[in-house]
Amino acid sequence: MIDEGAAWARIDALARPHRSLGMLETLAVRLAVIQQRLDPVTRPRCVVLFAADHGVTAQGVSAWPSAVTGAMVATIAAGRASSNALARAHDCALRLVDVGVAAALVGPSPDFYRAAAVGPGTADLSQGPAMTVADFDRAWAVGSDEARLAIAAGNAVLIAGEMGIGNTTSAACLTALLAGISADEAVGRGAGADDAMMSVKVAVVAAAVARVAGGDARGAIAALAGFEIAAMAGFYAAGAAAGATVLLDGYVATAAALMAERLAPGSVRNFIAGHRSAEPGHGAALAKLGLEPLLEWGMRLGEGSGALVALPLLDSAAAIIGDVALLSELGG
Amino acid sequence: MIDEGAAWARIDALARPHRSLGMLETLAVRLAVIQQRLDPVTRPRCVVLFAADHGVTAQGVSAWPSAVTGAMVATIAAGRASSNALARAHDCALRLVDVGVAAALVGPSPDFYRAAAVGPGTADLSQGPAMTVADFDRAWAVGSDEARLAIAAGNAVLIAGEMGIGNTTSAACLTALLAGISADEAVGRGAGADDAMMSVKVAVVAAAVARVAGGDARGAIAALAGFEIAAMAGFYAAGAAAGATVLLDGYVATAAALMAERLAPGSVRNFIAGHRSAEPGHGAALAKLGLEPLLEWGMRLGEGSGALVALPLLDSAAAIIGDVALLSELGG
Repeated sequence: MIDEGAAWARIDALARPHRSLGMLETLAVRLAVIQQRLDPVTRPRCVVLFAADHGVTAQGVSAWPSAVTGAMVATIAAGRASSNALARAHDCALRLVDVGVAAALVGPSPDFYRAAAVGPGTADLSQGPAMTVADFDRAWAVGSDEARLAIAAGNAVLIAGEMGIGNTTSAACLTALLAGISADEAVGRGAGADDAMMSVKVAVVAAAVARVAGGDARGAIAALAGFEIAAMAGFYAAGAAAGATVLLDGYVATAAALMAERLAPGSVRNFIAGHRSAEPGHGAALAKLGLEPLLEWGMRLGEGSGALVALPLLDSAAAIIGDVALLSELGG
Repeated sequence: MIDEGAAWARIDALARPHRSLGMLETLAVRLAVIQQRLDPVTRPRCVVLFAADHGVTAQGVSAWPSAVTGAMVATIAAGRASSNALARAHDCALRLVDVGVAAALVGPSPDFYRAAAVGPGTADLSQGPAMTVADFDRAWAVGSDEARLAIAAGNAVLIAGEMGIGNTTSAACLTALLAGISADEAVGRGAGADDAMMSVKVAVVAAAVARVAGGDARGAIAALAGFEIAAMAGFYAAGAAAGATVLLDGYVATAAALMAERLAPGSVRNFIAGHRSAEPGHGAALAKLGLEPLLEWGMRLGEGSGALVALPLLDSAAAIIGDVALLSELGG
């Protein structure tokens, strides 16, 4: 059993001045405890991008029309989005899973694409439940299957990312519900909402959360979620249950992590927060999970991008605990 | 000519929401301007570690004896130090240059080792000049040669690191002199000085800086420097002059960067600050250079370690400006 004490003892036995690498050592200890080994590994690794549409876009909560979800899915499928570029830069395999995109993917689908739509996008969460509990379970299963596939392929670090116009509205609802913050605190500009959209977004979130609060947790979550967010939650819970190291992305991803922890308590032990995004509710979500982000760079793209930027910090942490001489080995 | 405006125009034409990657985009712009290309490159890259001893250790300013410099040089030569592990993790070539280590390297020297000692360590800077101006020029030339070699080998990103017990005392003197801060502000615990050592260190720094201030700049710098710090300054200046991207490490490295900028003005245009260390004077040194650090992780090891941890952040930045579709290419 490798607990924090055992991991710190290893760090402190290495050939360098005591505690001279700050947060890098803290991260190395977390990796060692998650993986139960003093030489944690970070390769191979993969990012799975889950995409879906959101009925709540009908309320004018987003600067972008729903059709952009399909356009970005096509860009990712063509290997030309920010997430593809970052995954290539860091030797990270990439998968793209349609959990509910309204527009069909035009053209040839690449090997790394999977069609697993639960439906053509969620219902409008401002008018009633975004999805049924049965559909929530289907979307969750898509994600948990992906985690199991990734682990079976030998991946040591799992990242989930998302693409879904409107999904910061869903994330704000879920964060308000699960981290216990107000709609005002939970709502940010997402991919670029203006002031008028922000007012609508706050009102939508406040009303939706008030409508479901107090009910059964799974039902309340399903009423507010997106298909891609439910899939990410399933991915996180299954990844954690199998002992994988799970690296979180931004606000939407952390909403999924809150869901995973609520429905599969203890999952958080395997989570590492890649960054704190520019979305104002993200800090509260991370605090609820007790996680300190590695980077605070004002990133708010999604697509797993923040986690991919943080990924090589895990490589550094693994190197400085697992690949350095012990003081006791020197000068003998 | 690629100025910041041209680089931001490229960023803003990419297929993602406006300014959605925060500091990563700022870093991408800096890379593009340094390299004068909209698809900046970060490979191949190398770290050159310069090692030397310091006569000022006779004053009891360090928690470690001078002999540790030689022991750590041997550990680096054996490929087993933190810097080796981090360089391996990030596909970064490593060179080790003895610019003035008192102890001879015992055992076989690896291909990546170069013996170029200017002397067996500096004189005690508390008693008189640490080195002559002629020796300063020799050490500087060792570093500038290394930069030219690294560039000739095709390296796009250059990192310098250091090993030298006592060198945070020299760095504090240089930072006080060149950034205009007091000895109190410039002195930190280095590799682990206790309170008594700290008092001595502050007194030594204050007296040495007072002694040389007002004289000729090169003479004053030589009187306070270390051989490895002078070599780093030459490395930085020559790297910048040749157009390379120069990634800075911690406090000692930034003292060398201040020297480079003082003696070869304009060098700073090619510098990127990898991190802000736990040493209290580091922030003032970076501010004097007008640089924002990428990470603030409380690292204080030296050996190029902080720059190596930050290095893959440059890979991400290069990827998100150079390897992503333009909005104008989509949906056409």
